Amino acid sequence: MRFDRDPIIEALRKIVPADRVLSGRERVAPFECDALPVYRASPRAVVLVRSEAEVVAVAKLCRRQRVPLVTRGAGTGLSAGARPLERGVLLVTSGMDRILSVNPDSMTARLEPGVVNLQISRAAAAHGLYYAPDPSSQIACSIGGNVAENAGGVHCLKYGVTVQNVTGLRLVTADGEILTLGSDCLAQPGYDLLALVHGSEGGLGIVTEVTVGLTQKPAQTRTLMADFSTVRAAADAVSTIVRAGVVPAALEMMDALAIEATEQFCHAGYALDAAAILLIDLDGQPEEVAAELALVESVLANSGASRVQCAASDAQRELWWKGRKSAFPAVGRLSPDYYCIDGTVPRRRIGDVLEAIDRFARHYRLRVANVFHAGDGNLHPIIMFDGRERDALDRVEHLAADILEYCIEVGGTITGEHGVGLEKIDQMAVQFGDAEIAQFLAVKDALDPDRLLNPDKLIPTLAHCQEYRMLRKSDG
Amino acid sequence: MRFDRDPIIEALRKIVPADRVLSGRERVAPFECDALPVYRASPRAVVLVRSEAEVVAVAKLCRRQRVPLVTRGAGTGLSAGARPLERGVLLVTSGMDRILSVNPDSMTARLEPGVVNLQISRAAAAHGLYYAPDPSSQIACSIGGNVAENAGGVHCLKYGVTVQNVTGLRLVTADGEILTLGSDCLAQPGYDLLALVHGSEGGLGIVTEVTVGLTQKPAQTRTLMADFSTVRAAADAVSTIVRAGVVPAALEMMDALAIEATEQFCHAGYALDAAAILLIDLDGQPEEVAAELALVESVLANSGASRVQCAASDAQRELWWKGRKSAFPAVGRLSPDYYCIDGTVPRRRIGDVLEAIDRFARHYRLRVANVFHAGDGNLHPIIMFDGRERDALDRVEHLAADILEYCIEVGGTITGEHGVGLEKIDQMAVQFGDAEIAQFLAVKDALDPDRLLNPDKLIPTLAHCQEYRMLRKSDG
Repeated sequence: MRFDRDPIIEALRKIVPADRVLSGRERVAPFECDALPVYRASPRAVVLVRSEAEVVAVAKLCRRQRVPLVTRGAGTGLSAGARPLERGVLLVTSGMDRILSVNPDSMTARLEPGVVNLQISRAAAAHGLYYAPDPSSQIACSIGGNVAENAGGVHCLKYGVTVQNVTGLRLVTADGEILTLGSDCLAQPGYDLLALVHGSEGGLGIVTEVTVGLTQKPAQTRTLMADFSTVRAAADAVSTIVRAGVVPAALEMMDALAIEATEQFCHAGYALDAAAILLIDLDGQPEEVAAELALVESVLANSGASRVQCAASDAQRELWWKGRKSAFPAVGRLSPDYYCIDGTVPRRRIGDVLEAIDRFARHYRLRVANVFHAGDGNLHPIIMFDGRERDALDRVEHLAADILEYCIEVGGTITGEHGVGLEKIDQMAVQFGDAEIAQFLAVKDALDPDRLLNPDKLIPTLAHCQEYRMLRKSDG
Repeated sequence: MRFDRDPIIEALRKIVPADRVLSGRERVAPFECDALPVYRASPRAVVLVRSEAEVVAVAKLCRRQRVPLVTRGAGTGLSAGARPLERGVLLVTSGMDRILSVNPDSMTARLEPGVVNLQISRAAAAHGLYYAPDPSSQIACSIGGNVAENAGGVHCLKYGVTVQNVTGLRLVTADGEILTLGSDCLAQPGYDLLALVHGSEGGLGIVTEVTVGLTQKPAQTRTLMADFSTVRAAADAVSTIVRAGVVPAALEMMDALAIEATEQFCHAGYALDAAAILLIDLDGQPEEVAAELALVESVLANSGASRVQCAASDAQRELWWKGRKSAFPAVGRLSPDYYCIDGTVPRRRIGDVLEAIDRFARHYRLRVANVFHAGDGNLHPIIMFDGRERDALDRVEHLAADILEYCIEVGGTITGEHGVGLEKIDQMAVQFGDAEIAQFLAVKDALDPDRLLNPDKLIPTLAHCQEYRMLRKSDG
């Protein structure tokens, strides 16, 4: 390392102290991938930034030298959005982790991008407030990454995804300019760049500050669990509940395989003979919760639930949710490997998509456990496989593609909260036509004219789209 | 007219039947301005379109001939966003007014852009649903214009502005391509062009179809009216209510002058001795409403309200709201002319901004009545004046600028729901720095490379910004 004469690395060491510039295969190894490790690459350099001024200097350097720049937060992303490029710089914001202010009057908090999601709620708790979006990775993921992926979570049915909970951003552009976007008010004039940055996966700029809206902690939360003897009945109940005018704080579904795995893992008290269960949180003022509870219980009974239970204590509530939250590692114990998909369908098509997943899985000789945010129609099928089998990964990839493309077919989308990254870049060609892709690229070029910011992710080229569409056609 | 040989007009007559192409000063006169008639211009031609195919053909013609194209819906806009250009074509979408479908299962409706806001709720009523955003002009304004201005209304505190209630758009681009944006699902991959189009005032494309989300009609709505002896106490109560964890369906404020005007006009039963009143709607399940009612009543009592009444009947509720909704014409009766401003401040700054408005108004020797969406911090000061007085309009414009720029100073914005158009183009230079303006222009150029779509509105040039900032500085 000592004799490294890469001019980019030398220039980075003039921007930040030398110990915050990493290079050489071994030292950058921890940054080769995010939480989707099938995609990995060894970056030319990793720079650990601590301030907006450093971000600006790195952006200007990369622009001047035409070096690609990938931004990484906590590295918990599931679509390889933070996978580095071999010829590029990886800028890591996890060290910018200060909570700049918590303002109970305006119900907002100003944060550096590296602040961990759960820390926001901890800091706001003293004021009876919390930050609503709660991705499963909330103990580790950072708010900058939440913005980049427009992260969701269990409670986004009622409280919205990240974009609905962020009121302001500071963004460093590809040429090192600082933009201030958003305000404490409901609307801002001009084009809505604040929304545009959400889900843009670091491709339009580098977020250096996030102002989030905080939510009043509900006075009460009650949890229902309903068992169903068919998946279809559970799926239909989801639509009926929302159609009845109730917006549950959470409305989750697990199928038999997910139930089985979870029960073995943490004994949450799920019914092993159920084809599917729904877990439902209702929150608000006690009178409101009581009214909703009665309404939802009657909908569940009329929808063919074989049993409906209301958690008798906070301990029981927490145990039920612990089961749901540990479903991924639980399934992981049943299978040498697993791969989690993220797609979304209109709520009323949940039954259809679950049947299709079952059909596709049989075709590829794979097992799938289903755990998902049913209220949003946001699926997370977990494909179980053994990577040591010769063609296993290939079958998994085909199954994932079939599931995602079925989501599109029924009017859904290829992502709910995990983003596109590299993982789903092919499916963008199915989700969109050339007209939309061309406009995405035009917007990209407007903010990042040299396509240096996280290039080749999220938005495919038109040529790539045409190739993939031809390939799928020939697949039949 | 018969001998008109303008090649653009002739080309338009090949796209639509001749009787839907208007030209000549007299025939285009009804389209010279929108609802802000101080800005007017006589367009080269008006084309009344009936289908997306016609919109595509007009867009392609204008692009080919480099002719500016301004889109107009119902013409109810209040910032001159639909004012035509003398050298340009005015495309009128109000004839595209079919409700394409109402889907109770997905709680959505597909609409042509000319559908009138209130018609949506009428069409959805049979399913117990309605369309939540309700601008004051809702009996006349169309959904395409609502998207262009990102319209709000009395109920957007709880139910969001237009962008939160639209799930899909079809957009014809400057070069006549059709984009399909959004879905029935909570998230879509790619850049969020759906959000970007909201509030873009026809500058990024022409909306030809809107899919809106519908809302379940609340089981119950109760209305509170609270009288206050100081404006400051009423303003502070607004913040306290929201901070207590209640999100009222509506939270409106009127000051003494607005009360006086309204009482004379429609005898709504407002207290003539109050310095300000709050009108508060609470909706939901009866138990929820009862709980919120008790909480809000106690907050109001502790905030120094001199009297709190709950409407005893629907007739009383409607009368109270009739007063609020007729405040503009009511003020109009007290004054030969009036001018309504639209700005937004953080809720906790409402008291400050009302004091500032009073101060500025005295300075310019003008009277201002205040009626506004207090829950959102969205002000609508109504400046009363007599246009026959020599410098009256000049003083009004200075007062409006001072109020808007004070909104910016306290962390607010120059619009809540009326847009920027031509009216507030100067204040964009105060709201934003050159870095943001440059990016807005870059986005504009990405979607509309020849700047033909509603040019010179919403986004000022950098040169214009610099000029205005210098002018304000020299004003002192």
